[in-house]
Amino acid sequence: MSGSVKGATRTAKVTTPTDREIHIERIFDAPRDRVWRAFTEPELLAQWWGRGNKLVIERFELKAGGHWRFVEHGPDGVHGFEGRFREVTPKERMVWTFEWDGMPGYPSVDTVLFEDLGDGRTKVISKALFFTTEERDGMVQSGMEQGLNQSYAALDALLAKMS
Amino acid sequence: MSGSVKGATRTAKVTTPTDREIHIERIFDAPRDRVWRAFTEPELLAQWWGRGNKLVIERFELKAGGHWRFVEHGPDGVHGFEGRFREVTPKERMVWTFEWDGMPGYPSVDTVLFEDLGDGRTKVISKALFFTTEERDGMVQSGMEQGLNQSYAALDALLAKMS
Repeated sequence: MSGSVKGATRTAKVTTPTDREIHIERIFDAPRDRVWRAFTEPELLAQWWGRGNKLVIERFELKAGGHWRFVEHGPDGVHGFEGRFREVTPKERMVWTFEWDGMPGYPSVDTVLFEDLGDGRTKVISKALFFTTEERDGMVQSGMEQGLNQSYAALDALLAKMS
Repeated sequence: MSGSVKGATRTAKVTTPTDREIHIERIFDAPRDRVWRAFTEPELLAQWWGRGNKLVIERFELKAGGHWRFVEHGPDGVHGFEGRFREVTPKERMVWTFEWDGMPGYPSVDTVLFEDLGDGRTKVISKALFFTTEERDGMVQSGMEQGLNQSYAALDALLAKMS
C-alpha cells in the first residue's frame, strides 16, 4: 500500500542491513514534537504500543540509566518487556535495551531516530542490534513485523486524535 | 606466577578469541560444589566479588529470567552492577547479562562454566560477549583484569576458609 495516501494503512519498511541488525522506517503524518510525545509520555504510549491490548507501564524512567518495563495483557496471555535507557536526546534520538520476558537475558539495543521531514510529517527510523544472527532471526520470525505494523496503525490513529 | 604453586597468587588467563569476546580461565583449589556455592550464595558472593570492598546484594534471583543487582562501596565511590539470568544449570553453567551503572544500556552476556578437574580442583571459564568490538575493548581497558584477579584472590581465601 502506498505511504503517500493519507488514511490508508501504511506498512513499515523492514530491512536487515547487516547480519545482526533490523532496520525499520515508517513515516507518520504528524510533526516531530507530536510523535516524540507519543513515544515518551506513558499515557500516550499506552494507547498504541500494545496494539489495542491493555498495556501496563510499570516503569518508565526517561533518562540515560533509567529503567523501563511494560506489561501487555493480550488474548494469548501476559507479556512483559523491559530494558534500560542508554541515551535520551529529546525529539531527536533514544537508545535503549529491549528484552522480552519470554527470552530473558537476550537483549537487543534499539536506536530510534525522529526525522523532521519539514512538511508536517516525521520519519521514525528504528535500528535494533542483536548479540547474534540467530537472535536477530528469531525476532524477525516472531511475527515482529505484523505486530509493529499494528502498533504503528494505532499510533497513526492516536496522532490524528492529538492534532 | 605459576598456577601450580598452592598458596601463591594466581593470575587469570585472559584472551580475546574473537572481535567481540573476552575469555577468562582460572583454576581454584577447591571442589566444584564449593566453588558453585561461592558463586551462588549471596552471603558467600558478598565476601569475594567486591575485592574487599563492601558489597550490597540488592537482588539475586538465581533462575532463568531472574534479576540480579550488586552495589559495591569502594574508596572511589559507589558502583552498581546488574543484569538478568538467561540460564542457571546448577554446578555446571550460568549465563547472565552484565551491565555497569556507569555505562547503562551497554550489557554484555556472560557465560560461566564450572569444570571439575577431578583432583579436587575446579576450572572456572568465563566468556563475555559484547555488542561491539569497541564495547569489548572498553571493558578490557577499564582495569577489568586487575579487578578480576583481586576478586579471584579473595575467592581463593574464601574457598580455603570454607574447607
